Amino acid sequence: MYELIFVTSNPHKVREVKEIVERLAPKVNVKALNLELKERQLDSVEEIAEEAVKEAFKLLGKPVMVEDAGMFIDALNGFPGPYSSYVFKTIGNKGILRLMEGIENRKATFKSAIAFCSQEGLTLIFTGTVKGEISLEERGEGWGFDPIFIPEEGGGKTYAELGPLKNEISHRRRALEKLATWLSSTLSP
Amino acid sequence: MYELIFVTSNPHKVREVKEIVERLAPKVNVKALNLELKERQLDSVEEIAEEAVKEAFKLLGKPVMVEDAGMFIDALNGFPGPYSSYVFKTIGNKGILRLMEGIENRKATFKSAIAFCSQEGLTLIFTGTVKGEISLEERGEGWGFDPIFIPEEGGGKTYAELGPLKNEISHRRRALEKLATWLSSTLSP
Repeated sequence: MYELIFVTSNPHKVREVKEIVERLAPKVNVKALNLELKERQLDSVEEIAEEAVKEAFKLLGKPVMVEDAGMFIDALNGFPGPYSSYVFKTIGNKGILRLMEGIENRKATFKSAIAFCSQEGLTLIFTGTVKGEISLEERGEGWGFDPIFIPEEGGGKTYAELGPLKNEISHRRRALEKLATWLSSTLSP
Repeated sequence: MYELIFVTSNPHKVREVKEIVERLAPKVNVKALNLELKERQLDSVEEIAEEAVKEAFKLLGKPVMVEDAGMFIDALNGFPGPYSSYVFKTIGNKGILRLMEGIENRKATFKSAIAFCSQEGLTLIFTGTVKGEISLEERGEGWGFDPIFIPEEGGGKTYAELGPLKNEISHRRRALEKLATWLSSTLSP
């Protein structure tokens, strides 16, 4: 087994990542670790993840991954983008819906950036994006912005309403597929 | 003359800081420098300014200061706080007013954190806060959140409506007073 440490403080992400990676790359065993990393205030999820994984690798010296994700709303100039987590904690889904009141263009993109660092210290970034739109009200039970994001390929349902199906089509799934493909090819005899 | 480099990309801050510091500490000559610093995504303006000034001092090796400021709205759990600059650029004053529609508690605090690093590499943080509230609409011409923030001691006017008087009572003024006092005592014969 190839042990991969996933540094995060978010239990929802642990669940999603373990489920997806272990299915796509059965030789990989994902171990979650809550390590206090200083995230840099950068304007892209790729850079945030990359800086964080470098710091984590320095501390751990083992294969490690970090994920950063953001929801970018077209009509709000990309807000909340790389600050999605802070914005969710402060104004929440209700705040986003309020900002979108009366706005016709509800297009948004969810983006995941996975930064991976190998045993040798090689850093790779894998991204996944899903286009969609912001719903008119919260629908379904889910974490983060899941109750208000309707992915294009979700038949009109929000991520939250999709339940386990979310992991089949999500931005995170798409980024993890790229990671898994890379890991599988590297780990194959 | 004591030369102090102020690292910032914001011309409005340069104007305010030069005006205030050179009046309060006449021996100090503030020179603005636009240096690309990676701000860390931290949850306090103090930490953001401190990390940035350390990076700036590493690069410059001379007395240097950095300022970070944020507006913290009580009813929005402190939003936009340390992310004020990003939030202003994306949803702007109109976004904040929209989030505050119908909310009775309009209390907010503006906070400035100045991080200073001396020739010897000593880092000091000076903070200034002003309590106030969010106006019902934009009033006056000003930068950032100035048109929607009514400081407690401003006679009901917004920072923007106060014009040059803003510098007499602002959060930035209060932090700079502390810096100037420290500099004056250090520089006196």
